[in-house]
Amino acid sequence: MGLKRVDIAESFARFREQWSPKIVGELNGQMVKLVRFQGEFVWHKHDHEDEMFLVIAGRFRMELRDGNLDLEPGQFLIVPRGVEHRPVADAEAQVMLFEPATTLNTGDVRNERTLERLERL
Amino acid sequence: MGLKRVDIAESFARFREQWSPKIVGELNGQMVKLVRFQGEFVWHKHDHEDEMFLVIAGRFRMELRDGNLDLEPGQFLIVPRGVEHRPVADAEAQVMLFEPATTLNTGDVRNERTLERLERL
Repeated sequence: MGLKRVDIAESFARFREQWSPKIVGELNGQMVKLVRFQGEFVWHKHDHEDEMFLVIAGRFRMELRDGNLDLEPGQFLIVPRGVEHRPVADAEAQVMLFEPATTLNTGDVRNERTLERLERL
Repeated sequence: MGLKRVDIAESFARFREQWSPKIVGELNGQMVKLVRFQGEFVWHKHDHEDEMFLVIAGRFRMELRDGNLDLEPGQFLIVPRGVEHRPVADAEAQVMLFEPATTLNTGDVRNERTLERLERL
């Protein structure tokens, strides 16, 4: 059996770092990642990549230049390429991401939060 | 605000048909779809497309030629291109799919269950 069933809660239990997406799947050149959010991230955008955020546990606010969107478990948001955004979580949120394999976490910004290589769970 | 927050449970409440995926999002040429499974589908494969199945509610069994995998809420499976599979659900399951925009529900098989066009929710 080459195929692997992934349990999202079990996968989250395997790491504690925040703002450090872990790769849990790959398909059609896209990555499935799990990330823990808490606090404020940096404003950024991705020039060539759309990004999907699906809340698994907790909640967070996606700040956008023209308003904010609150996201709860079972809700998702697709941020199209070119749209500036900043995720902010008052308490820790567990989020699943879908985005191309090439997506850098901080998009067009490079700073101390930029991760060039992501761990695979 | 051009961006749309999608609530998965609310979206499922908007349709009852089984085996009829509804499009709820699109990113990077990939579609996010919701589908209700019950009973046995047809054996098929997708020659050029990987397909992801994430269980939202209920459970189902993915039958594969070399064994089966049971999937529960919060678990997902990626079926790579070329791999024959058949989803089977004893009771209704609610499943989120990620796959390219071009993916046909019955893959390399065309029969009465094939859907050429999918509805957008």
